[in-house]
Amino acid sequence: MADKDVCVPIIEFDFMTDPLQKIKPRVRELKAYTLSPDRASIKLNQNENPFALPQRIREETLRRMNERSWSRYPDFIPASLHQKLAEFSSWKENGIVAGNGSNELIQATLMVTITEGKKVLISEPTFALYRQVTTVLGGEIISVPLNEKLLFDISTLRETIERENPDVVILCSPNNPTGCRIDEEDLKSLLDISDGLFVVDEAYWDFAEKSVAELLNDYKNLIVFRTFSKAMGLAALRVGYLMADESVAREISKAVLPYNLNAFSQTAAEVCIDFYQEELKPLVEKIIEERKRLFAELKKIKGLSPVETKANFFVVSSGIEPKKVFRELLQRDILIRDVSGYPMLKNYFRLNVGTPEENDELVKSLKEIFE
Amino acid sequence: MADKDVCVPIIEFDFMTDPLQKIKPRVRELKAYTLSPDRASIKLNQNENPFALPQRIREETLRRMNERSWSRYPDFIPASLHQKLAEFSSWKENGIVAGNGSNELIQATLMVTITEGKKVLISEPTFALYRQVTTVLGGEIISVPLNEKLLFDISTLRETIERENPDVVILCSPNNPTGCRIDEEDLKSLLDISDGLFVVDEAYWDFAEKSVAELLNDYKNLIVFRTFSKAMGLAALRVGYLMADESVAREISKAVLPYNLNAFSQTAAEVCIDFYQEELKPLVEKIIEERKRLFAELKKIKGLSPVETKANFFVVSSGIEPKKVFRELLQRDILIRDVSGYPMLKNYFRLNVGTPEENDELVKSLKEIFE
Repeated sequence: MADKDVCVPIIEFDFMTDPLQKIKPRVRELKAYTLSPDRASIKLNQNENPFALPQRIREETLRRMNERSWSRYPDFIPASLHQKLAEFSSWKENGIVAGNGSNELIQATLMVTITEGKKVLISEPTFALYRQVTTVLGGEIISVPLNEKLLFDISTLRETIERENPDVVILCSPNNPTGCRIDEEDLKSLLDISDGLFVVDEAYWDFAEKSVAELLNDYKNLIVFRTFSKAMGLAALRVGYLMADESVAREISKAVLPYNLNAFSQTAAEVCIDFYQEELKPLVEKIIEERKRLFAELKKIKGLSPVETKANFFVVSSGIEPKKVFRELLQRDILIRDVSGYPMLKNYFRLNVGTPEENDELVKSLKEIFE
Repeated sequence: MADKDVCVPIIEFDFMTDPLQKIKPRVRELKAYTLSPDRASIKLNQNENPFALPQRIREETLRRMNERSWSRYPDFIPASLHQKLAEFSSWKENGIVAGNGSNELIQATLMVTITEGKKVLISEPTFALYRQVTTVLGGEIISVPLNEKLLFDISTLRETIERENPDVVILCSPNNPTGCRIDEEDLKSLLDISDGLFVVDEAYWDFAEKSVAELLNDYKNLIVFRTFSKAMGLAALRVGYLMADESVAREISKAVLPYNLNAFSQTAAEVCIDFYQEELKPLVEKIIEERKRLFAELKKIKGLSPVETKANFFVVSSGIEPKKVFRELLQRDILIRDVSGYPMLKNYFRLNVGTPEENDELVKSLKEIFE
């Protein structure tokens, strides 16, 4: 080694000026995906299940975890959960991959397909992560806007698929943040002309009471994503899964990290499935009922126009600037999502259905603000 | 849409022939990284902490989780853990990123740097994931073998860095599976000539009682990875973290998924830090003591030659085919790792230090096999 006293200042200068020279330029340009740190007692900003996870599910999870060593690795792949998911979703076990939230599976799917110059078709406004991960991987986003009614623009989607031949299509259905759901026949018409992988992110399917999963048998390029963070009431624990043809699942698994699912989350997900009919389904039904009631109540308020939804949330067109509504509600200890920065949603805010009491409080507050 | 009866067979034919056409060819060629599903009472194959996680840590974790809603998302980024890690590791909070195991952070680091044609330098045999993720991302692996003593070959590493100018260097130190640790002066001599990011994976640093983290102040391209899966006794829960310059941490964070760390794992990691000195440090010291004892015992067995290590495991050169030793031990309810498929390790198996009783049992069994 050369003399330290002579060398060090020069080296420090080199690295201090540009420790980032090997970071991809498009990553450096990217704004980090963030969320406002606001807090409130009534939390309607993240489309969570507003009900506490049933006590029986919590207790059984803790009981099972108490019997297990915490210093030992979880399963290499969470096989017992895959097995339960296969029964639960009526799809073959080797076509199922569970992950640390469906986010991880979105990332894995894009990692095995996308590199510089590859194309990902999405329909915006939608969940921000599709664009974020595609960009990090060097892929090109092709974005087809929703139509003016905030529904999927099927004919433009069809034209774009035929013209661009995207490597991956990702539709969120019901769509976050707008709540629209793609119709089966429309979806088939897109699948029929798609050579690439075709992802339908069904994070909110339980609230639509309808899934596109039955099409998996006919379309081997179809991948359906699901999550335990919404209807299943397990947002704190980060569990998602995908269903696909066995051959596709095998390839995506190569980008899923070993031991990706920790033992606690895996256990909790298994317990949720075990108690789904008795404990969770009734809560989903309550949320759907409350959605109808809340929708009707909001519609009555002058200056507000909620958009029909198949999810547990909706966007609301607002006569008062969304930022102001957000602030006014926050002052009343209610947190909603200001989505006015999204394309096409300049005059909208988003809120999810709460418990009956929370919804009453929300309606009361909105009336104060708008009337 | 066309008549279904006519259309469906044609569609099925199309996709059934090649649902994988958009998967990257190099991913399709890749063998999935797997682990043998063997089980045994004495488990010495995954370098885990052999002691049960102390009861106080388990109880306090469950207590904190019992106070928390499970249906609400965890923190967008695990800020309270980052804060504790900053104190624990004496590094600045905004230079720390926690992840779902350090695996996730390896992946994120490579995602923001590697695309087709970029170069990653590693020193093999080493942890298989570096090669796996690099390959999925389209990067080129440049591999410098360890020297014949299974130590880092510093002069060849230096020559290779100067010749190839790799975008990322990843060294595992202490190295899995061989246990060698890079010396500080040697590391500096490599950092001095490296333009790219330079990762030192310190998954096993606690057992070396020495870290390279103090060099973070001088080298802004240095990234140090750590894990809670080994000394910290939390393998079931998947928590890792990295330390880097703030600017580097910020860029890597763009490929770390939001809500990547579930609430339970985050809580458990925080409790581990809170009780580290009282509960975990003494276990690490016991493991180091046992390592010395086990090493001496194995050295006495004719046909076995253990390799000096700074980790909680070692490789052992074996006069009997490693596969056969593996099977013989498995019959005695002891699970080790057959690493004979790794480069340079044809005649070796790997085992981690167990509890005193487990180590006694292992020595007894190896004596039976070799004497």
